[in-house]
Amino acid sequence: MDEFTLIKTLFQPLQELGREEQASSSFLKKIGDDAAVWKGQGNLAFSIDTLVEGVHFTPDIPPDDLGYRCLAVNLSDLAAMSATPLFYTLAITLPKVEQAWLSAFISGMENLARKHQISLVGGDTTKGPLTITIQAHGSCPDPVYRDGAKVGDDVYVSGSLGDAAAGLKLWLDRNTLTLDEHKNYLIQRFHRPTPRVELGDALSGVAHAMLDVSDGLLADLTHIAEASDVSIMVDAHLLPLSDALLNSFDKHQAVEWALTGGDDYELAFTAPVEACDAVRFLSRILNIPITRVGSVASSNTEASVQVKNAVIDVTRLGYNHFQNE
Amino acid sequence: MDEFTLIKTLFQPLQELGREEQASSSFLKKIGDDAAVWKGQGNLAFSIDTLVEGVHFTPDIPPDDLGYRCLAVNLSDLAAMSATPLFYTLAITLPKVEQAWLSAFISGMENLARKHQISLVGGDTTKGPLTITIQAHGSCPDPVYRDGAKVGDDVYVSGSLGDAAAGLKLWLDRNTLTLDEHKNYLIQRFHRPTPRVELGDALSGVAHAMLDVSDGLLADLTHIAEASDVSIMVDAHLLPLSDALLNSFDKHQAVEWALTGGDDYELAFTAPVEACDAVRFLSRILNIPITRVGSVASSNTEASVQVKNAVIDVTRLGYNHFQNE
Repeated sequence: MDEFTLIKTLFQPLQELGREEQASSSFLKKIGDDAAVWKGQGNLAFSIDTLVEGVHFTPDIPPDDLGYRCLAVNLSDLAAMSATPLFYTLAITLPKVEQAWLSAFISGMENLARKHQISLVGGDTTKGPLTITIQAHGSCPDPVYRDGAKVGDDVYVSGSLGDAAAGLKLWLDRNTLTLDEHKNYLIQRFHRPTPRVELGDALSGVAHAMLDVSDGLLADLTHIAEASDVSIMVDAHLLPLSDALLNSFDKHQAVEWALTGGDDYELAFTAPVEACDAVRFLSRILNIPITRVGSVASSNTEASVQVKNAVIDVTRLGYNHFQNE
Repeated sequence: MDEFTLIKTLFQPLQELGREEQASSSFLKKIGDDAAVWKGQGNLAFSIDTLVEGVHFTPDIPPDDLGYRCLAVNLSDLAAMSATPLFYTLAITLPKVEQAWLSAFISGMENLARKHQISLVGGDTTKGPLTITIQAHGSCPDPVYRDGAKVGDDVYVSGSLGDAAAGLKLWLDRNTLTLDEHKNYLIQRFHRPTPRVELGDALSGVAHAMLDVSDGLLADLTHIAEASDVSIMVDAHLLPLSDALLNSFDKHQAVEWALTGGDDYELAFTAPVEACDAVRFLSRILNIPITRVGSVASSNTEASVQVKNAVIDVTRLGYNHFQNE
């Protein structure tokens, strides 16, 4: 079997995971021609993201985790728009075609794709340094942007923060450590982030502004503050920290990662005070912790994010605008 | 100015080149949020392609040519579906942010984007080995696939063939050569291929099957033969060879490149004999040479492409199915 046929065969299972209606009636053509053709209806949200070996993941990441993660970060972007994923394209650059590696990579991706019933509908395979680009597409009848935050809104985050940064640290140091259940959980949180697809979808009409936490809470809330022209106050006492994180690292380190560590892929959003019951209800029915971590303090010319009760000095982290109280 | 701001500023001009109606009313959100949101209507064709340094282009390619070329190969895929380009996304991995290089790259891309009035609507910039992935999207009310070729169809190609392969050879050897007008033309054909967008669009309803010549005429016609389950006969005497090619290389070499050289990005299509006047008319009004190079010979179980009058031995090129007559 030549490389071309091998790749084609290996990727086949990813092409038929869509919900029946979107797999058949919505696609006139998927893989196998010069382009895919989608019979469109309604708003289509799409997000493109590249992961580069040595930059976004270490060369020794298990390939199934890598496949999972590449798709997860894109689905997280869709969730942050309140979009429901429909399908995706994959451009993968590989140093060589190694069947075992590729099979594992695809099985990790399939795991997540199957859960959300989305199909691979187009792609390109090229030779070169390992680089993976995915464009994910979703249905988005009522998008939630970054620019809708209003003064008086509460600021919420899903899940817990800082786990992924801790997980990366543990992964890099794993040969010098004994990995207990907590530490393995944190590594998993880095390698297999959970895109909050159902929550993002449900928050349409509830959240005023939303994004996913990929660069770190403070950096990401700054995007909301700037786009909405408001200032946001985060209370470090309120940050949701997992038992695994608190069991594995001291409080200072945990808070620092929760504020500035990236890659958690939790949703951060603002919602009016009246929506607090709706948020609590969604948290319960979706079984996803949602924590109020602050509020939109004021509308001013210098959009900014400030932190109170930080047990650490956030100014040394390069965030000039933050003040400790 | 930090790198992030620099990149944002440099890419700005690419974001507002769309036709008025598609730039404003069709996009709820372009760059600047977690995802772009397109207010869809009708069939959307999309194609994703990656170009890797050292594989698809040499490290010394002029950056403006590279920017042009990356977009051109994607628009060519859309043309091959008979789709009209609407917008595109760009994921670029850069070893470092060098303003002069990036400005030239963007200006080359802008040149082509402006011609087709298409906007950059989303993207990702990452650090790593130079790799460029573009997904181009087009409106496609009446797509032409690869699988529609019928016995008795004529087989046509646009423009001339073999120029890009010759251009690549000349580019690699340029330090040992005197580059005359012809040779520079061939290099340009490799670096700045012309996507046949208007022709592809116009061939909807005329062509039975179509694709763009990226891997070489014989390899690409094999895709049509296999998808349509037919056998195709190409007459090497009929191949359109440019004056520049015939002036720079001997006939044998020219024919070999026309049959097997890639990267010409011309359209190859089949159409019924009755359509020959329509094809001639399109050639004249669009001012694009279109040449009949063969015909769809028979429907058989062993889909194949055969060559007659080849002045070269095509079997030595690794194409088992081809026969000389």
